[in-house]
Amino acid sequence: MTHVTRLDTSAVRDAVAALDAALGHDNVITSAAELLDYRDPYDYVGSDEYTGAAVVTPGSVEDVQEIVRIANAFRVPLWTFGQGRNYAYGGPAPRLRGSIQVSFRKMNRVLHVDDDLAYAVVEPGVRFQDLYDHLLAGGYRLWPSIPDLGWGSVVGNTLDSGRGYTRYGDHPSTQCGMEVVLANGELLRTGMGGMSTSKVWHLFRESYGPNHAGLFFQSNFGIVTKMGVWLMRAPEVYLSCWATWRDEDLTAGVVDALRELMLDGIITNQPLVGFGSPSEDGRDPEQGGWMVRFALYGREPIVEAQYELARDALARAGDVAVGRRAYRGDEERSRATIHDDKVQGGVPGLELLEMFKKQSGEDAGHLDLSALGPMTGADVAESIRLRRELYARHGLPYGAGIILLQRCALHISPIVFDTRDEQATRAGYAAYNAMAADLARAGYPVYRTNIQSMDVVADQFDFGGHAQRRFNERLKDLLDPNGILSPGKQGIWPRHLRDGA
Amino acid sequence: MTHVTRLDTSAVRDAVAALDAALGHDNVITSAAELLDYRDPYDYVGSDEYTGAAVVTPGSVEDVQEIVRIANAFRVPLWTFGQGRNYAYGGPAPRLRGSIQVSFRKMNRVLHVDDDLAYAVVEPGVRFQDLYDHLLAGGYRLWPSIPDLGWGSVVGNTLDSGRGYTRYGDHPSTQCGMEVVLANGELLRTGMGGMSTSKVWHLFRESYGPNHAGLFFQSNFGIVTKMGVWLMRAPEVYLSCWATWRDEDLTAGVVDALRELMLDGIITNQPLVGFGSPSEDGRDPEQGGWMVRFALYGREPIVEAQYELARDALARAGDVAVGRRAYRGDEERSRATIHDDKVQGGVPGLELLEMFKKQSGEDAGHLDLSALGPMTGADVAESIRLRRELYARHGLPYGAGIILLQRCALHISPIVFDTRDEQATRAGYAAYNAMAADLARAGYPVYRTNIQSMDVVADQFDFGGHAQRRFNERLKDLLDPNGILSPGKQGIWPRHLRDGA
Repeated sequence: MTHVTRLDTSAVRDAVAALDAALGHDNVITSAAELLDYRDPYDYVGSDEYTGAAVVTPGSVEDVQEIVRIANAFRVPLWTFGQGRNYAYGGPAPRLRGSIQVSFRKMNRVLHVDDDLAYAVVEPGVRFQDLYDHLLAGGYRLWPSIPDLGWGSVVGNTLDSGRGYTRYGDHPSTQCGMEVVLANGELLRTGMGGMSTSKVWHLFRESYGPNHAGLFFQSNFGIVTKMGVWLMRAPEVYLSCWATWRDEDLTAGVVDALRELMLDGIITNQPLVGFGSPSEDGRDPEQGGWMVRFALYGREPIVEAQYELARDALARAGDVAVGRRAYRGDEERSRATIHDDKVQGGVPGLELLEMFKKQSGEDAGHLDLSALGPMTGADVAESIRLRRELYARHGLPYGAGIILLQRCALHISPIVFDTRDEQATRAGYAAYNAMAADLARAGYPVYRTNIQSMDVVADQFDFGGHAQRRFNERLKDLLDPNGILSPGKQGIWPRHLRDGA
Repeated sequence: MTHVTRLDTSAVRDAVAALDAALGHDNVITSAAELLDYRDPYDYVGSDEYTGAAVVTPGSVEDVQEIVRIANAFRVPLWTFGQGRNYAYGGPAPRLRGSIQVSFRKMNRVLHVDDDLAYAVVEPGVRFQDLYDHLLAGGYRLWPSIPDLGWGSVVGNTLDSGRGYTRYGDHPSTQCGMEVVLANGELLRTGMGGMSTSKVWHLFRESYGPNHAGLFFQSNFGIVTKMGVWLMRAPEVYLSCWATWRDEDLTAGVVDALRELMLDGIITNQPLVGFGSPSEDGRDPEQGGWMVRFALYGREPIVEAQYELARDALARAGDVAVGRRAYRGDEERSRATIHDDKVQGGVPGLELLEMFKKQSGEDAGHLDLSALGPMTGADVAESIRLRRELYARHGLPYGAGIILLQRCALHISPIVFDTRDEQATRAGYAAYNAMAADLARAGYPVYRTNIQSMDVVADQFDFGGHAQRRFNERLKDLLDPNGILSPGKQGIWPRHLRDGA
């Protein structure tokens, strides 16, 4: 990309020296060997296209303000991440080579938990595992919602519009009340945090006046330094449930049944439909079989009635087998070992990563092609047909997980390659980009992407002559005139790095 | 206010003439007699402090763009409303006297309903009553969520962060996908509407990149011309439930029990706690008694189990009587006559307005002091104690409705006065402003206010030297440099009308 050539590397060097003086040597990483840990983990081995010049680790909000001040003074780009563990989307790596990476791994405190009102306030370095451990150790009656891997940042995942699998699996909607360092160093508290005496910063999601929180999702308009996260009341009983079927023609009927169960308030989590998933517990012995997992939470008589209604509705779709495992109380659920049961019960782990490495090799990388479609059986079937066709065209094996969100089906299919092979890796990204474009033409937008494809996906948001991009660029130039915050994030570039500017 | 003196009335006259030529005489109201219907209905009779110069009624998005073009050309202020029926907050009246009011009463089409995916797309003039009628006539299995009065605009209420009383009563979170005319005349579609081919504009609430939707709530950054609204699946059974108690000391325990029932997913709507409410059906015969209404929706075995659990939990709070009325199917619910049953069943009406007029007189006005506090029994009791003290200080009778939102209690108390009495009316607003300041000092932010108090409430959002206001002013100057869109809305003024500017 042409952007790279416009970076002033001597200014970056001077900024790194200033950061070293301001934050201390322990908080600035510059050795090439150590920086290897902060490149795009799924870029090809040896590539330096997505490496930074240094990593700085602030320990406080004031440190973040100081970093922003220095970046403005030297007009150098920062790239912020919580933990940088979202490997399929680029990990900690900057979009713009030579940026200074800001790691929140040292700002990892759970600042507050309210057991009655069911929320926590966390710093951006808090991992799902940390939050889970904190809640368990404190004896709180609260569950976190977690994604498949427990090593990621709660704030980072939420701001990337990440998903989990409990009743609170729609992570963006669990956000309530942020503190943000703006590019000019000012501190903004969103929503009801705008009043210094407010008792409800983390309890009410709207603002008096415009609501600014959305501006800081998938964004380079500010750096979030604190966030309120709503948590789920630990249920009396948790049922981890599943349905399996062999005839793919039944899938549409199962999806429609699930949507109605969800709209009726019977299934309240975010189910996952998949096929050919490995058997952990003997319930899906045959490769190629279809399954859905879902969960029920609450008081015993309710979940029992819900389970019966769900079982009957799914059985009406045809030859579908339904099963469940019950967990009573937090203690029992915390000892779950099967991935589906853990992840729907808010118990974090790394078992999927280990399984991936075992299946595909230690040096395997993968991208997740994550696009949205309507949550109807007919459309999910069409979406599966289209993906199969696209994967076949690129000679890639198709496998998928489809997260069901009441009105939307989030269809995620991986593209796997060996990162030791530059050509194979490049081919993987190229296939991703080509398929994302084909999906857009068919009406299925990608909602989240890896750093290497951010411009490609932004191009597809074309309504009104790319009205969203122009709007974002106006906001970017206003809020960050020196273009120091994560340039290129989600295809938003500051003026001096834009094509034709 | 000093703002008024800076309005160029001859420019406004020229703009009105241009609008008349562009939109046709039928779409521009200028007669003083007709404009009386568009003043602040709860200002004192004879006041012209909050009257506009004209009302224009666009019939299309293109009309809105033309209005914006003319307003920019003449640099005159517009003031937009959906129906202008939110009387306690100012109705259709502009914050700035002499503004040109833009009425959406003629853009009142329900553009689309999807029965399977449970949403509608509406223009900003669609009333709750219109949406309800449309759904009933079309035989859709869908309920709207409605506020107490059915004559307001769905879009207007939602954008003002309004509340309803079904499972979908958190109206801001039912918004999915807007079309917005910006001050420069450009059209922006939020979220997944940014892709012209997108199948999921009204199905997924987040964006690729920053989420802009929040910017258009309680805002003067753009004019919303279309909105997707998520609707509730019509339940098999709907139970309209209530609990009553006489001993005020029990209130805290009841509130705590309700919070736990809500966090457990047993009660899924937004209950309303009140006292001294008039008896419609004999369940609350004694003035001064306390009550809460709540509702259960869904399949018969579930709601029956939920009702039993709720009844038992409420009974544990002390001498609390619990009751219910059941409605099976849409037909039965559509014939409900009691207000609580209608409003929790999504059946709009005007019975509360008629009751208010009967109790307080045809010329009575009222303000709603609407502030948020934590949803704990102890805090709700403290909030009631504080309001009583404040109302007593101003010699006003205290009465309240407290909407319960899982983590927040939205405490709304009216201030009633006779609008034929200028002094009494001014005293009402003065009491409101004084009490809003006292509530802010105690940590309870007002989340929504009448036009006359917008600056007063904005002043209370003081964190970071009024960081939110400064942020809003920067956005305002960027997005609307001529300051044509609803100047003064929620205390946000364009540069040329700001104090000291």
